[in-house]
Amino acid sequence: MTILESIRGPRDLKALSQEDLGELSGEVREFLVEAVSRTGGHLGPNLGVVELTIALHRVFESPTDRIVWDTGHQSYVHKLLTGRQDFSKLRGKGGLSGYPSREESEHDIVENSHASTSLGWADGLAKAHQVLGERGHVVAVVGDGALTGGMAWEALNNIAAAKDRPLIIVVNDNERSYAPTIGGLANHLATLRTTDGYEQVLAWGKEALQRTPVVGGLLYEAAHGAKKGFKDAFAPQGMFEDLGLKYVGPIDGHDIGAVESALRRAKRFHGPVLVHCLTEKGRGYPPALAHEEDHFHTVGVMDPLTCAPLSPVGGPSWTSVFGEEIVRIGEEREDVVAITAAMLHPVGLGPFAARFPDRVWDVGIAEQHAAVSAAGLATGGAHPVVAVYATFLNRAFDQLLMDVALHRCGVTFVLDRAGVTGVDGASHNGMWDMSILQVVPGLRIAAPRDAAQLRAQLREAVAVDDAPTLIRFPKESVGPEIPALGHIGGMDVLHRDDEPGVLLVAVGVMAPVCLQVASLLGARGIDCTVVDPRWVKPVDPALPELAARHRLVAVVEDNSRAAGVGSAVALALGDADVDVPVRRFGIPDQFLAHAKRSEVLADIGLTPVEIAGRISASLAVQDAGARQNQES
Amino acid sequence: MTILESIRGPRDLKALSQEDLGELSGEVREFLVEAVSRTGGHLGPNLGVVELTIALHRVFESPTDRIVWDTGHQSYVHKLLTGRQDFSKLRGKGGLSGYPSREESEHDIVENSHASTSLGWADGLAKAHQVLGERGHVVAVVGDGALTGGMAWEALNNIAAAKDRPLIIVVNDNERSYAPTIGGLANHLATLRTTDGYEQVLAWGKEALQRTPVVGGLLYEAAHGAKKGFKDAFAPQGMFEDLGLKYVGPIDGHDIGAVESALRRAKRFHGPVLVHCLTEKGRGYPPALAHEEDHFHTVGVMDPLTCAPLSPVGGPSWTSVFGEEIVRIGEEREDVVAITAAMLHPVGLGPFAARFPDRVWDVGIAEQHAAVSAAGLATGGAHPVVAVYATFLNRAFDQLLMDVALHRCGVTFVLDRAGVTGVDGASHNGMWDMSILQVVPGLRIAAPRDAAQLRAQLREAVAVDDAPTLIRFPKESVGPEIPALGHIGGMDVLHRDDEPGVLLVAVGVMAPVCLQVASLLGARGIDCTVVDPRWVKPVDPALPELAARHRLVAVVEDNSRAAGVGSAVALALGDADVDVPVRRFGIPDQFLAHAKRSEVLADIGLTPVEIAGRISASLAVQDAGARQNQES
Repeated sequence: MTILESIRGPRDLKALSQEDLGELSGEVREFLVEAVSRTGGHLGPNLGVVELTIALHRVFESPTDRIVWDTGHQSYVHKLLTGRQDFSKLRGKGGLSGYPSREESEHDIVENSHASTSLGWADGLAKAHQVLGERGHVVAVVGDGALTGGMAWEALNNIAAAKDRPLIIVVNDNERSYAPTIGGLANHLATLRTTDGYEQVLAWGKEALQRTPVVGGLLYEAAHGAKKGFKDAFAPQGMFEDLGLKYVGPIDGHDIGAVESALRRAKRFHGPVLVHCLTEKGRGYPPALAHEEDHFHTVGVMDPLTCAPLSPVGGPSWTSVFGEEIVRIGEEREDVVAITAAMLHPVGLGPFAARFPDRVWDVGIAEQHAAVSAAGLATGGAHPVVAVYATFLNRAFDQLLMDVALHRCGVTFVLDRAGVTGVDGASHNGMWDMSILQVVPGLRIAAPRDAAQLRAQLREAVAVDDAPTLIRFPKESVGPEIPALGHIGGMDVLHRDDEPGVLLVAVGVMAPVCLQVASLLGARGIDCTVVDPRWVKPVDPALPELAARHRLVAVVEDNSRAAGVGSAVALALGDADVDVPVRRFGIPDQFLAHAKRSEVLADIGLTPVEIAGRISASLAVQDAGARQNQES
Repeated sequence: MTILESIRGPRDLKALSQEDLGELSGEVREFLVEAVSRTGGHLGPNLGVVELTIALHRVFESPTDRIVWDTGHQSYVHKLLTGRQDFSKLRGKGGLSGYPSREESEHDIVENSHASTSLGWADGLAKAHQVLGERGHVVAVVGDGALTGGMAWEALNNIAAAKDRPLIIVVNDNERSYAPTIGGLANHLATLRTTDGYEQVLAWGKEALQRTPVVGGLLYEAAHGAKKGFKDAFAPQGMFEDLGLKYVGPIDGHDIGAVESALRRAKRFHGPVLVHCLTEKGRGYPPALAHEEDHFHTVGVMDPLTCAPLSPVGGPSWTSVFGEEIVRIGEEREDVVAITAAMLHPVGLGPFAARFPDRVWDVGIAEQHAAVSAAGLATGGAHPVVAVYATFLNRAFDQLLMDVALHRCGVTFVLDRAGVTGVDGASHNGMWDMSILQVVPGLRIAAPRDAAQLRAQLREAVAVDDAPTLIRFPKESVGPEIPALGHIGGMDVLHRDDEPGVLLVAVGVMAPVCLQVASLLGARGIDCTVVDPRWVKPVDPALPELAARHRLVAVVEDNSRAAGVGSAVALALGDADVDVPVRRFGIPDQFLAHAKRSEVLADIGLTPVEIAGRISASLAVQDAGARQNQES
């Protein structure tokens, strides 16, 4: 039995010797590399927090003490130490979640995989403890990258002001989120990081000044004034202490004893305190450390020794099609610039950045800033392309509406990972965008069905300079091209039988699904028309008239059924007094558990067989109603 | 002719003597008090920025130089100096907007009235200048209160990192946004503010250290270390400089010469620089200064001498009904706590704060933190009530979804100023909430129709401890009680004729409108049922069966027509294979210009006459279709 196997819960850690702990760390790393190679998952971040997690669970008493993990993908070690060592189905259906999960364990608090939330959660928990008189410490573990998000600032500002409310912030500083962390804060952390003997200087200076208080004060003022002029030449200044947070650090995050000692000091302090730990992403696994792009932030199924991918690789990804086309566009138009929120490579902007380094900005985990600075760029004459994951656009809703759309800025949003993404669980699905954005006046939304459409629609989008546009596509490999048989208004006709039959409105990647539905219904003698509206907002003006020639309209979208394209189509038909029944197919009103995309789609009935069955049933109800009317 | 009247544009300011400028300042203040007393508007903030605005327009060349006003309600002086001196219809239909407006002037850039955006806009503008090789300075004028918002932080982090991209941030520090500014940052600004001779010390210290560089360095390190231990005993530390921003200040914001000199220094600096100006909200108008709550942040029509309100005051406001009931609930339940985002009094939490000072938190202009800390509070055992303006909830969409709803937290959101608010223009209307929130699984939304319903539904909401709830109501005075004649499912029946006729689904304050529609239709021989669903999300399960007994369903809501309650009702009917035509009445897909609420409602056709007319027309189309079917 290994030491790791003997750990049933955090308590088992406390009896271990320093030597045992070193061995445990090694075992955890070995486990992670082997297990995550088999399933895919977040490898680099977890290799970096082995010692930190062990120290946390030795110093605090979870779950009475509340440990909140920011961006929960760094919680694998925490899972291993809290009774969850079966990683065989990690992120798979019925297996462990890739993030904390309240269903899995009482040690887990925040399931949300969006960054920068932990400080706010911790502030709320600490306030609850204060109001309800509960015991227990509250600890937030946050990466330096997550500190670039506005939520982190809002929380820090509140936490720092409450001097009598204990709260421990552990900054896990690995100098990167997905990629290296950007911004003034990162520079400041770097300054803090590089001061050897900082703590010693502190102690000595204090003593020296106590001996000569008045002169010391004067000297201090002189020195302090000087500092403003010679900033970079001197020691770090404590931005966190300026705000009113006690600062402890920097600590070597791979030295369990040092981390424990810092955490114990923090635990005794009756107020907000920040512990600055330095860690290395990918620690102990040379291939990860050697991987410059992201230190193996996420890996697919791979050989743990050679790191060769073992999962079948499909055709080119939607991401890469976008990535290539935006470079071509950039070559033709100097005003086209790009913005990413700490995701340069995952959203496909790597080639653009390589080609046009002065025309791309990584703003950090700061979607709000991505959108609002895009409004400024557009107003200044550029055409910004903001590329983010669909789920993260939720953070920039207000800015898209109030800054970009209200001011009629020509900004193109490109949403990757739209629709059901699957293995990353509830909060990574990009299933809200086509619903919440229905209310944005002037916004045009495209959902391309294949690579050719993506390229064409991206060009149509960046050509719009007086309104925002948005293009959304999924995570998967892009499928084969689906040709248009003809056009009605701006819509592509993909399939056509006799009218009146069923009109299938196929949104984006639902096109092949709808073609299969048409084929299934055709086999039952039900005629179908399949159109791809291409631009789903606004609704094509030709749609109501086309719908009027059918018995039923089915709108199929890889998006929430509530408020989405189906809703917009129904509204347009009602406005035209076209009262053909509308059925909406999409994602039901629920959060989706992690599983493969195909499994999730099957679970929610977004498959050709289920859709065809539902449409047949509705037609049968119609027929029955018509018979009843004739009889009466 | 006064000096003010002689100012046609910013250029006219440059020829004025210091004495003229003093006189101009006085004239501007007199003008503001008189004009704003007549129309209502933002008085206190504009009285505070008279000298600052004059100095800005003397030092910079707008519109080549771009001056971005954060929370544009501080732009009245700017309007006066850029050719707009007719304030007679301020915020009224056809009159000047209460915020900057691109339609009004080339000197206006950002119209959005949401706070904390200016730094992001300025960052984008500066980037555009850099990429496109344009000239002109970029200046953001931001209040200290707006710096508590996460967007400001995201922008600062980006701005500070770009050492070679000039950008001037003017912090208009009046120690308050609406109310006094909260948080660690406010404390830090206070420290900066209270150091007399700070600039002098800086200069002297620099010189002293240049004479003895090595020793100076050592002394500095000692002193700096000491500072960490004796923080409060010494001079301020520059959090902004820690981030990498050049800091200039603090400057007396009412000394035009001092402000000009600081701005000229900033203008010469080739990088990001922050100018810290101290101003007084309500400056020069004793009644404003004496007003403790908010220094006359906004005033209604009033007598400028006595400050007695001159506009007719209606019955009790929705806000006050909420404010009273939440105190009663707070007395019954110790776990009920409240959160406001820098709006304690405007959202009606004043009485609650007075009664339970330890159970209310003002988090600053930080809606994201309001929502996420509420999730933490709920997880910790409390029941938080988050009270914000409806339009500002857009900022917390992701947190409501991913933190509160995903974790099934019992948090009650209370949205004031929902629906058309009118005079504050496009960005203050609360017309998006019932649309974007349709996608939030588990969320329950109530739209009370009268005071009794608000009280009852608030109690129903705080009784839910395993899911978020939300209550929304408008800005107006609450109308008379509207009794229920009966109940169908959870819905209140407000009016009932014979079936089959028209089913009117009246959302919240649209109840009296729907009753008038029923009366108008009744006069034309069309029978109506009017129901108030009370909880509009989820759709009442009894609705489809009720709808099936009618010829047409009309959903009337004070919210976007896109994706709102009408969409949810249509979806529920389709799911039940009930294909009664649905017509949605609400706010069209556009931004609304400022005017009185009643004028806006008339402009967009959300009136009984228009709704009844549209329903009649649809019924006529139905009848014509039925005749055609019979004939064929």
